[in-house]
Amino acid sequence: MSGILGVYSDKDVSKELYYGIYSMQHRGQESCGMAIYDTEASEIVYKKEKGLVGDAFKEEELKNYKGNIGIAHVRSSSVGHNHVSNTQPFVGSCRSRKLAIVDNGSLVNANYLRDSLEEEGFMFQTNSDAEVILHILARYYKGDIVEAVKMTMDHIKGSYTLALICDDSLVAVRDPHGFRSLLLGKKGNEYLVASENSAIEILGGEVIRDVEPGEIIVVKDGELKSYHYSEVCKPVKKSCIFEHVYIARNDATIDGLNAYEFRINCGAYLARNEDIKADCVVPVPDSGWAGAIGYANESGLKTTEGLVKNRYVGRTFIKPTQEEREIAVRIKLNPLASAIKGKSIILVDDSIVRGTTSKQLVKSLREAGAKEVHLRITSPPVKFPCYYGIDTPTRESLLAASHSVEEMREYIGCDTLKFISLEGMKEAAHGMNTFCTSCFDGDYAVKKIDK
Amino acid sequence: MSGILGVYSDKDVSKELYYGIYSMQHRGQESCGMAIYDTEASEIVYKKEKGLVGDAFKEEELKNYKGNIGIAHVRSSSVGHNHVSNTQPFVGSCRSRKLAIVDNGSLVNANYLRDSLEEEGFMFQTNSDAEVILHILARYYKGDIVEAVKMTMDHIKGSYTLALICDDSLVAVRDPHGFRSLLLGKKGNEYLVASENSAIEILGGEVIRDVEPGEIIVVKDGELKSYHYSEVCKPVKKSCIFEHVYIARNDATIDGLNAYEFRINCGAYLARNEDIKADCVVPVPDSGWAGAIGYANESGLKTTEGLVKNRYVGRTFIKPTQEEREIAVRIKLNPLASAIKGKSIILVDDSIVRGTTSKQLVKSLREAGAKEVHLRITSPPVKFPCYYGIDTPTRESLLAASHSVEEMREYIGCDTLKFISLEGMKEAAHGMNTFCTSCFDGDYAVKKIDK
Amino acid sequence: MSGILGVYSDKDVSKELYYGIYSMQHRGQESCGMAIYDTEASEIVYKKEKGLVGDAFKEEELKNYKGNIGIAHVRSSSVGHNHVSNTQPFVGSCRSRKLAIVDNGSLVNANYLRDSLEEEGFMFQTNSDAEVILHILARYYKGDIVEAVKMTMDHIKGSYTLALICDDSLVAVRDPHGFRSLLLGKKGNEYLVASENSAIEILGGEVIRDVEPGEIIVVKDGELKSYHYSEVCKPVKKSCIFEHVYIARNDATIDGLNAYEFRINCGAYLARNEDIKADCVVPVPDSGWAGAIGYANESGLKTTEGLVKNRYVGRTFIKPTQEEREIAVRIKLNPLASAIKGKSIILVDDSIVRGTTSKQLVKSLREAGAKEVHLRITSPPVKFPCYYGIDTPTRESLLAASHSVEEMREYIGCDTLKFISLEGMKEAAHGMNTFCTSCFDGDYAVKKIDK
Amino acid sequence: MSGILGVYSDKDVSKELYYGIYSMQHRGQESCGMAIYDTEASEIVYKKEKGLVGDAFKEEELKNYKGNIGIAHVRSSSVGHNHVSNTQPFVGSCRSRKLAIVDNGSLVNANYLRDSLEEEGFMFQTNSDAEVILHILARYYKGDIVEAVKMTMDHIKGSYTLALICDDSLVAVRDPHGFRSLLLGKKGNEYLVASENSAIEILGGEVIRDVEPGEIIVVKDGELKSYHYSEVCKPVKKSCIFEHVYIARNDATIDGLNAYEFRINCGAYLARNEDIKADCVVPVPDSGWAGAIGYANESGLKTTEGLVKNRYVGRTFIKPTQEEREIAVRIKLNPLASAIKGKSIILVDDSIVRGTTSKQLVKSLREAGAKEVHLRITSPPVKFPCYYGIDTPTRESLLAASHSVEEMREYIGCDTLKFISLEGMKEAAHGMNTFCTSCFDGDYAVKKIDK
Repeated sequence: MSGILGVYSDKDVSKELYYGIYSMQHRGQESCGMAIYDTEASEIVYKKEKGLVGDAFKEEELKNYKGNIGIAHVRSSSVGHNHVSNTQPFVGSCRSRKLAIVDNGSLVNANYLRDSLEEEGFMFQTNSDAEVILHILARYYKGDIVEAVKMTMDHIKGSYTLALICDDSLVAVRDPHGFRSLLLGKKGNEYLVASENSAIEILGGEVIRDVEPGEIIVVKDGELKSYHYSEVCKPVKKSCIFEHVYIARNDATIDGLNAYEFRINCGAYLARNEDIKADCVVPVPDSGWAGAIGYANESGLKTTEGLVKNRYVGRTFIKPTQEEREIAVRIKLNPLASAIKGKSIILVDDSIVRGTTSKQLVKSLREAGAKEVHLRITSPPVKFPCYYGIDTPTRESLLAASHSVEEMREYIGCDTLKFISLEGMKEAAHGMNTFCTSCFDGDYAVKKIDK
Repeated sequence: MSGILGVYSDKDVSKELYYGIYSMQHRGQESCGMAIYDTEASEIVYKKEKGLVGDAFKEEELKNYKGNIGIAHVRSSSVGHNHVSNTQPFVGSCRSRKLAIVDNGSLVNANYLRDSLEEEGFMFQTNSDAEVILHILARYYKGDIVEAVKMTMDHIKGSYTLALICDDSLVAVRDPHGFRSLLLGKKGNEYLVASENSAIEILGGEVIRDVEPGEIIVVKDGELKSYHYSEVCKPVKKSCIFEHVYIARNDATIDGLNAYEFRINCGAYLARNEDIKADCVVPVPDSGWAGAIGYANESGLKTTEGLVKNRYVGRTFIKPTQEEREIAVRIKLNPLASAIKGKSIILVDDSIVRGTTSKQLVKSLREAGAKEVHLRITSPPVKFPCYYGIDTPTRESLLAASHSVEEMREYIGCDTLKFISLEGMKEAAHGMNTFCTSCFDGDYAVKKIDK
Repeated sequence: MSGILGVYSDKDVSKELYYGIYSMQHRGQESCGMAIYDTEASEIVYKKEKGLVGDAFKEEELKNYKGNIGIAHVRSSSVGHNHVSNTQPFVGSCRSRKLAIVDNGSLVNANYLRDSLEEEGFMFQTNSDAEVILHILARYYKGDIVEAVKMTMDHIKGSYTLALICDDSLVAVRDPHGFRSLLLGKKGNEYLVASENSAIEILGGEVIRDVEPGEIIVVKDGELKSYHYSEVCKPVKKSCIFEHVYIARNDATIDGLNAYEFRINCGAYLARNEDIKADCVVPVPDSGWAGAIGYANESGLKTTEGLVKNRYVGRTFIKPTQEEREIAVRIKLNPLASAIKGKSIILVDDSIVRGTTSKQLVKSLREAGAKEVHLRITSPPVKFPCYYGIDTPTRESLLAASHSVEEMREYIGCDTLKFISLEGMKEAAHGMNTFCTSCFDGDYAVKKIDK
Repeated sequence: MSGILGVYSDKDVSKELYYGIYSMQHRGQESCGMAIYDTEASEIVYKKEKGLVGDAFKEEELKNYKGNIGIAHVRSSSVGHNHVSNTQPFVGSCRSRKLAIVDNGSLVNANYLRDSLEEEGFMFQTNSDAEVILHILARYYKGDIVEAVKMTMDHIKGSYTLALICDDSLVAVRDPHGFRSLLLGKKGNEYLVASENSAIEILGGEVIRDVEPGEIIVVKDGELKSYHYSEVCKPVKKSCIFEHVYIARNDATIDGLNAYEFRINCGAYLARNEDIKADCVVPVPDSGWAGAIGYANESGLKTTEGLVKNRYVGRTFIKPTQEEREIAVRIKLNPLASAIKGKSIILVDDSIVRGTTSKQLVKSLREAGAKEVHLRITSPPVKFPCYYGIDTPTRESLLAASHSVEEMREYIGCDTLKFISLEGMKEAAHGMNTFCTSCFDGDYAVKKIDK
């Protein structure tokens, strides 16, 4: 899971890149980076670092980065080996052409492509998709970047959204199914692409539209041109519903649907289909807030902040010993005993993946005196792993993959457990039908190719 | 504004100090520190650092700090010179006795005491109250720590809550009016004192009671003894209402009143006295959430998250230039246009100090399409500076000091503006009458002594 | 200019790599790194950092690096773009084979190779030779590492010394002319290769011999095998004389010649051919010490430490303003006035490149009262740039390229100036005839290929 | 052991303080600091840090420090507790007067003064002499700084050299016996005081003279005035001979005697009194170089660099395990086998304290093939601890305190061992008779007062 940003301007872009990825920090806190095309030197300068945007870039530095075309990236930690540096952007040069890439997504045939290239003698320095894509692109890029991107898209399968610097052009690409979000904006003479509209709006720009599935956007000499990767093929749109369930901020409007409104609607749908009489609605902060408000608004029940979140728990938290484990849980989320004592509560969260956090929270609420805990989830059970970039665990670790709802309830220890249905979710999305729901129903638009 | 913690245990306390101040991080993000009495060496080891608890202390380090008596501190940035190190704890030795202090509060006669001591040839290395208090204490401490504390309390006027290491004793003190909060807890054989109950509860301890105004608690050889600073004098209790308005976390219960309940009640009181018909209630995150929920629950209006907060804006944010100012504001709080467009909204916040933030938010909401913005504040107008430790600005900067409510409304640019009344607040506190409300009514229990 | 190290052991090698490159820190202070083959994980872990070895690696970290095969590197700053990360080792994988490389040297056909590979669609992420070499090697490495190395050596021209991890083998290579040094050592069951013998000896190992020009050494399953890159071709040996002039430590013995002895002999040769009667010999610290002692021992003149060096001037020294320039020079080397006042001195240094430092020192000595300054250089005039890895500037910046000795004397401002002759240097090397002296005579064994 | 610096200028002094303590870095690498009187704010800004000058201060920072009066300090690690911050300067305020102090020296009655002050209720935050002195000074300073300093000097016994900021004055003080060095310089309108003349000269200033024992120098309003601490008392001068033996740089001229010349003379004296026929002279780097050159020049023997020093071994060196101990020793000083094999060598060092290093070096030289090792020391046996600031260990740890020269030779393992005599040292100092030699003969001018 990542956030990407591309800016084509007539001024230095380093500060805008900084503010832009700062506003998408929620999409990844593990590392961040930016690359800028320095027109004077005809070179790409870049920096990528572990840690938060605010810690990684200093004012002095940003001033020194010259150039009017830039891309930037925030990235969440992923499975895999932490000795190998997967931070983005990737920067390379080939036939004296300068290239840089940032990517959000996940290829289903990354291993196959890697193997093929290695058979030809190519070598890889990381296990990142972006390195694979950049190698293929570099190979085909002999002057016509649109052709090179099209030929690259013929090879790569799965989800991807790219922002590229190709010499003096900014290029943006969304995969043919549009699995991952990408929006196009304008601010004066400037063009912007970003994973979330908030990045564009916060910079003072206006969102023009979503980048279309399969679309290739090239900004060069101040002008934007749009291409489609194929004349003959129009795959169905399958944009990721999990953006709306969990990833995007409330102010995100992706593929025409606002995340907050969707979340409120999901909560309201659950409330309309409720058969339990409870005393109040308690959100799991922060992921459950919007659903809880939707539920409360619809049901007429009062919202109660029954779990208090520590805003400062972040990356720098020492590992607790076994005895300190419970202390560590309470530091993150402490039950507000006086507000829940003796109450029958509707606890609202956005999803259940492994179920361990839910289990701990229910235990914690019961110890603080809650009479009944009815857990309501604003997305259906996650039964299938995501191959398109959401960092869900393997099937074995997905609670819903091997447990019925009743077995899940028992494991978690709540009094009742309910999920919204796929139909409910569709209703909450105003009947929209272009979402990828493979994590719920296993209906994969593009199959995983392991070898 | 600070948070203090003291632990007397039969085991090493460094990890508990760490977790405890981590849980009070919201009370101060500027610096933190801890001091521990190392019984083997009969020495006090300590560390104090700028920055967050998680950044300041590493696991390796904490393991190396030996000792079963400890105090710790988090501190918010204060007015004053940043070259002078005011981080706490202060540690000193006198007549081979080891002393360490942490303090939350503000003396009204600090300058007077400082001058008197300097007349006698004493010298100060910082401008912190804690250094003054420690000097006076050291002077009187010749073996009987209770006598020394009493004599010190005869000199120091204003608000203070102290946790002290005096050789092998842990001492806790709350000023005679009890301006600032201090709670006493127990966990097995361990005694704890903390500015907020959550620190005690999160560590797995149980709150026994609030430390009484004027009380001196001494834990030595595993036993707790309680003293009162004066046989003859019982000043009226004046605990700070701003803890409940703003400072403490929702899960704090101080002097018998839970902060969340109070905040909910304040919102509800405003709703009961409302004469505007609006479409929804919008909280100013995060300070306005509880009040907004109270308002919504009472009024039956829907709560809407109309302002989206960036959770990552912290200390490490580069200074925006003039042109970037608006970007920086939106990075912190971005209006959720789709949720507020065309709506008449009740905007709820906890207080107005300078009024500049409110002004920006109203502007921002109007630009995003809000039809009407009715600002409701869950505390009365702040007209008087605080001398007891709340970091309010001088009178000149307090908007309410020189503006009527209508003038404030005009300055802020909202359609209507209402504050809860002092009576309303009292009702929200279940009629409790022991609060200091000097920032609202100028009724100072202890006068400021400037020279 | 770099130092490389390779270790094949039956124990974890991280600590030995650390100590080994620590002992070669004089060969490069800009960056350092190590890669280790973790047999359990069949993976290569690595770290590379800017800065000194002691700052880059912490004990905790070294403990965590598991694996019995390792390579390591120290590197001096080079010309070129500081945004591009050229730190070594380079690590890659190809056909599930793991590769890592460290290199000391400089290819004369790097640009040509780069262009050819880019024509085939390869992309480069740095401008380092090591990346080029690793790409070529990866391409040919399909199981037989010796064949792959031989085929790689057919392509790469110029100077190189390589230590490679190829899966579970340690491979060491010295270029066919042996431009750069590489020594082979043994310590119990362990094999070591290093740019300087001191690294082997300090680790407690024994030097077996120099790696031969064109030799390929492979250590696998605990056994060492040696190969020659070509059956038919035996290029003449051309080991770099500058190692003995300047780079290597006094305790280095490379290709059978000890650096200290050579330096002493050069000074003595100059003394035997002296026609000036001076009062004392002053070394330019630290580079001129050995030559000065050789001169003094031979001439019977007294050695005087007329220039005092600040041992702490390193990378962290703030840039002086124009007015502070002279202060900065004196901080580095301050004349010892009392020792040189009124004296006629023989000032001994190892080489003159740009001549600016010599000029400043002579000025400084004169101001401190020296009557006469006779500059003696223990290497011939450097008239030609080095293509094999010594960081000499372009021809234009080489003082001797465009100035006669008399013109150089005038520029520098000394009373007389003498260089050792090529013959003198040969005599000092006991008549050895296998050195590359291209920087003095322009006789390049391998021509530079720019395209 | 420390280096102090004071500058009174008509310009900002931060950069000069930086360069000045950089040039005295050899006097202390543990911590450094500076304090500057900011005339505009009538305040003292300061910073003190662990680590080297170059690491502690950044250009940006230095620019921000405004003020024309400054003091600065470098400090070597001392015995004692590393949790207590003893870094200098100490800064305090008293009766709205601003004070700052840096000190080089060691009081013999520090404990007594501390106890007395604590009896009066004073409290100490460190165990540094400078804090004691500053407290006493603050007490007496009511406007007349000269009187205050005189009264302070009546209390403090032992060695001290002070540079003080007292509001808008710079004050420099040397103790009545002049144990520690302090020199006065001028540069244009600027006055400078420093522990070593090199600091003054490197800044472009000229040394005027040594500050006299018992002298108080006050620079105010651009004018220098000199006072003597007592009208009636003129103690004998006892300046520390160890400055010349070991501490000061070769370019230091303290109390009229140049350190390099003295060291050369000591080596020559030993050579004149030699009865062994050896092959060459080997210095222990870096401390033995000057003595070795003096010896070689006098004896006609050749100097040989038989031990090669690693210039980069500093504070950041990981702790070796037991097995790595010998590696660690060789990393610091590696014998140059080819130069000493089969040779009978004169090994010259400046002093023997514990004898452990000498023992290791002799072992190391023998293993590298030395036939005979004759150790010559350019100072007499150190039999008594120093109470005046040289960091010698307790008597028990001084090898010479409990061993005859023959027993020392046996412990160290050399063939012969000789020290220069006190008379020899006096001769090397041109008959000067004003040195403190208490570490050699136990003749303490001021007795240690423990309580």
